[in-house]
Amino acid sequence: MSDSQAEPIFSLPVRVYYEDTDSGGVVYYANYLRFMERARAEWLRSLGFEQDVLQRHEGLVFAVQRAEIQYLRPAIFNDLLAVTAKLCARGAASMVFEHEVRRESDATICCRGRIKLACLSDRTLRPKRMSDELLAEIANVL
Amino acid sequence: MSDSQAEPIFSLPVRVYYEDTDSGGVVYYANYLRFMERARAEWLRSLGFEQDVLQRHEGLVFAVQRAEIQYLRPAIFNDLLAVTAKLCARGAASMVFEHEVRRESDATICCRGRIKLACLSDRTLRPKRMSDELLAEIANVL
Amino acid sequence: MSDSQAEPIFSLPVRVYYEDTDSGGVVYYANYLRFMERARAEWLRSLGFEQDVLQRHEGLVFAVQRAEIQYLRPAIFNDLLAVTAKLCARGAASMVFEHEVRRESDATICCRGRIKLACLSDRTLRPKRMSDELLAEIANVL
Amino acid sequence: MSDSQAEPIFSLPVRVYYEDTDSGGVVYYANYLRFMERARAEWLRSLGFEQDVLQRHEGLVFAVQRAEIQYLRPAIFNDLLAVTAKLCARGAASMVFEHEVRRESDATICCRGRIKLACLSDRTLRPKRMSDELLAEIANVL
Repeated sequence: MSDSQAEPIFSLPVRVYYEDTDSGGVVYYANYLRFMERARAEWLRSLGFEQDVLQRHEGLVFAVQRAEIQYLRPAIFNDLLAVTAKLCARGAASMVFEHEVRRESDATICCRGRIKLACLSDRTLRPKRMSDELLAEIANVL
Repeated sequence: MSDSQAEPIFSLPVRVYYEDTDSGGVVYYANYLRFMERARAEWLRSLGFEQDVLQRHEGLVFAVQRAEIQYLRPAIFNDLLAVTAKLCARGAASMVFEHEVRRESDATICCRGRIKLACLSDRTLRPKRMSDELLAEIANVL
Repeated sequence: MSDSQAEPIFSLPVRVYYEDTDSGGVVYYANYLRFMERARAEWLRSLGFEQDVLQRHEGLVFAVQRAEIQYLRPAIFNDLLAVTAKLCARGAASMVFEHEVRRESDATICCRGRIKLACLSDRTLRPKRMSDELLAEIANVL
Repeated sequence: MSDSQAEPIFSLPVRVYYEDTDSGGVVYYANYLRFMERARAEWLRSLGFEQDVLQRHEGLVFAVQRAEIQYLRPAIFNDLLAVTAKLCARGAASMVFEHEVRRESDATICCRGRIKLACLSDRTLRPKRMSDELLAEIANVL
């Protein structure tokens, strides 16, 4: 793309409920991975793709291969968070996302993640090339 | 059964980890349903039945139809709990369980549950009779 | 209130993500209780009350005392659900809610719940009267 | 330690229940972090330390600072897993663990993790030196 303007980064608002916290008074560390997956799902939907349709029509599913998470500041009960999803690399059968979890009230970055996904056939669970349509859409936002 | 001795009640030890608690300092209310399902799964295993085998060989799966839970005293982080599973009624395609969640250290009853399960075909999701073998084992402990 | 018009029922949209489902292909039964709590939290917020503020300023917290859940039809991955929260009874230190979980695409009722909450002091964990302000707001929607 | 024998690696058996899986038919990716924390908790208990006591007596809590997870093969419903916890580095106020999640039936490695924990004061949430007693025990197994 010769477009000089930066693509806006996709961001999903996530409210912290009791279910997300632990008795340490903060969001339980595994739950940030749930928030990041929600953001990836909504990012894909914003491009016009529903994961249940991709599976039904193309037999395509996504599986996380690698996750690297940095926990910077705790998010707490009732926080309103913004969870970004930014595609930062892709192959024919893989995508790498960077995520930030930011508290809206004071712009604190609570957590950063880098997640690598494999695109798999839902039958064989072996790598499967994304459709041209999906690859084209993704190329636009990369 | 002419046996006058009461059948011992099946009980599963469950340790409370951070994942189970919330920032109120107690076990999150939905998580007792996870504990109760673990107890039902281990009860079934103790009778010699593995749920993945039942599904693969008989196409039989279980689905909760109704749950009634009373929350009596909070369980907290690091508690060792005993979660009982007692079959209290059954039909050809249904089972009703009573559960108690008791803190081991002081015998406090934290939570009681009554859960009704339907036995379903994994293809049609319609009611399916349990096998004679399964029904016979269950009759022994009812 | 002499107003003859029915109060509209509060409803929260909830998307089903992978985290909510199990390998039976449906929403895991305990997770409907998470959805219902999200709806109660947003209902309270819609009346102008934040739970963290209620705790900090009044020492008031809510604890579930009893939950009765009927599972009618399974919700599945990627469903968009509407989760209602309707206050159907209240005392000075208790509230009873009725919830429905409805799939938006075909109006199927997946799950119904009736949940009784106690209002507690966050220090003593004993029953605590709600503030007049909170009771007044609640009276308006009952 | 001049002992030439390798310390056995701590391992916790973890059964996969429906709550741990998703509708992709596999263990949900965030849940391996729950399993790894259970293994760290039991490792610490095996050395004679209870986390609730450490907090009450020393004001010491642990917070994850960084997690790197590799997902190798999916674990599925009803699998019996062995989740190891191996301390591989420590400072006065930090510990680094390596975890493996192995399916017992065929010794498949499903998942590997490397988790860095900070030791914090539960009041200030600032780094806090572990007690000499805890440091001494940990030195023995490093």
